[in-house]
Amino acid sequence: MKIAFQGETGAYSEEAVFALCPDAEPSPCITFEDVFIAVREGEVEHGIIPIENSLYGSVHENYDLLQEFSLLITAEVNLRVRHLLLGVRDSSITNLRAVYSHPQALGQCRTFLRTTLPNAELIPSYDTAGAARMIAEKGVLDVAAIASVRAAEEYNLVVLAESIESNHHNFTRFLRLSDASPGRCAASEEDGGGGADYQTKGDIKTSIVYAQKENVPGSLFKSLAVFALRDIDLLKIESRPLIGCPGKYVFYLDLGGSRDDESVKNALRHLEEVAASVKVLGSYAVGRQIN
Amino acid sequence: MKIAFQGETGAYSEEAVFALCPDAEPSPCITFEDVFIAVREGEVEHGIIPIENSLYGSVHENYDLLQEFSLLITAEVNLRVRHLLLGVRDSSITNLRAVYSHPQALGQCRTFLRTTLPNAELIPSYDTAGAARMIAEKGVLDVAAIASVRAAEEYNLVVLAESIESNHHNFTRFLRLSDASPGRCAASEEDGGGGADYQTKGDIKTSIVYAQKENVPGSLFKSLAVFALRDIDLLKIESRPLIGCPGKYVFYLDLGGSRDDESVKNALRHLEEVAASVKVLGSYAVGRQIN
Repeated sequence: MKIAFQGETGAYSEEAVFALCPDAEPSPCITFEDVFIAVREGEVEHGIIPIENSLYGSVHENYDLLQEFSLLITAEVNLRVRHLLLGVRDSSITNLRAVYSHPQALGQCRTFLRTTLPNAELIPSYDTAGAARMIAEKGVLDVAAIASVRAAEEYNLVVLAESIESNHHNFTRFLRLSDASPGRCAASEEDGGGGADYQTKGDIKTSIVYAQKENVPGSLFKSLAVFALRDIDLLKIESRPLIGCPGKYVFYLDLGGSRDDESVKNALRHLEEVAASVKVLGSYAVGRQIN
Repeated sequence: MKIAFQGETGAYSEEAVFALCPDAEPSPCITFEDVFIAVREGEVEHGIIPIENSLYGSVHENYDLLQEFSLLITAEVNLRVRHLLLGVRDSSITNLRAVYSHPQALGQCRTFLRTTLPNAELIPSYDTAGAARMIAEKGVLDVAAIASVRAAEEYNLVVLAESIESNHHNFTRFLRLSDASPGRCAASEEDGGGGADYQTKGDIKTSIVYAQKENVPGSLFKSLAVFALRDIDLLKIESRPLIGCPGKYVFYLDLGGSRDDESVKNALRHLEEVAASVKVLGSYAVGRQIN
């Protein structure tokens, strides 16, 4: 089963591919848009995209693409970003002269690097998987890379230290996308994504994007009232100003329940009365958190 | 006036430094936390941090630091991210063999690169300012870098093409931070940041962070009611799940008006009744948008 993701082999996104589709054949893409195109054109079964990170926020670019393309979200997963210190076989943490990684990863491991490897030179690379590949190609004992467990496997590196990031609450939420065309979607919305079984309505969530009619005090309040009046739980809300359109906002909303529930159907119909536009992105099982 | 920012000379953040503090002496820091520390310790007059980008979302890390440190937001600016193609003197766009930049910048200029420079090799660097510095050091005619106008000035490069990014709605919102200690803060909140004058309440905004008491349907609705009931406009709202604390959320809210307005004071007192915690990050003049 071919699954598209953005990045190169060994990237963190590739872990999400296997978390959501264990028997996947990952298909690397250069940009997020390429992932959407690959799903739409039927070149792959599903696409996997990051939608938000607990430190760096929502990926608005992917929200834009979700609005532009008519794909459905059919599953999600929360994946902890774990940084590992990787070296070639027979290398040791006591003899490191330099550490390569993406500047963000080097920054996230600053406490470890300062206390354990105070004399190692920190050399920025343009991505973590690339740093791992490079030290594998160099094959010398006194340099290491900070990258993911997948990069370790991919480039045959040994783990010199694990979970070396200072903040252990670094999670990325990934979505699985499927083609919404009738008769094309292998994973129906109703299977909750990946065959997870669920009994209660609380296990399902629905993601929508909507735009306010105009920026008047209380208009956001009114749009949220359609859910509060029906006791529908809001799991995520985010406003985003439309640059170039002062006073215009778009909202991302995740709510508890399926688009097939009577109360959700009624709320969405009510929302269409008070909003300029409403787009349902999908109903799917609330995802696992993988530590 | 020393102003701290994260990044190196020629980085996009440095443009925000000059936009908010024209007579600044920029003081580069390695991490965002270093910026906060420099302000708190009185090593600099102000710090400048990015808080959200129109494509990539809120910088949660900086919201966390705003909660941890007791600094005040005293000004803001929205800065358009403009990518320029830069070369050494006497170079020409018709003879380029390679283009260096951060992968994100290369991606953002994909259409330009594909149509205008289809044969140039795209070489990822770990940041845009570093790419500019490198081609300045190389001093050869057939390579270029994609970076900011500040990088062009800093490294004496000529502009071969400007505004080459595909999406012209790429803006970053930056905040100016000041020490909140009594008698320490040079720019008082009341000056609206940088001496901008304002007449109407609509020109001032207040940023707060608050946590919900518990995740029950309608609790977000109740917390927003405190503003709607007083006709206070909401300019930004974003929820963020606290990883590791299921059902716990923190909210970022920007509202129209000053913390000194009677209605805002009343609303904040009311919010304290319904929220687990409320922190006011500052009241400041609504910032310019610099294209």
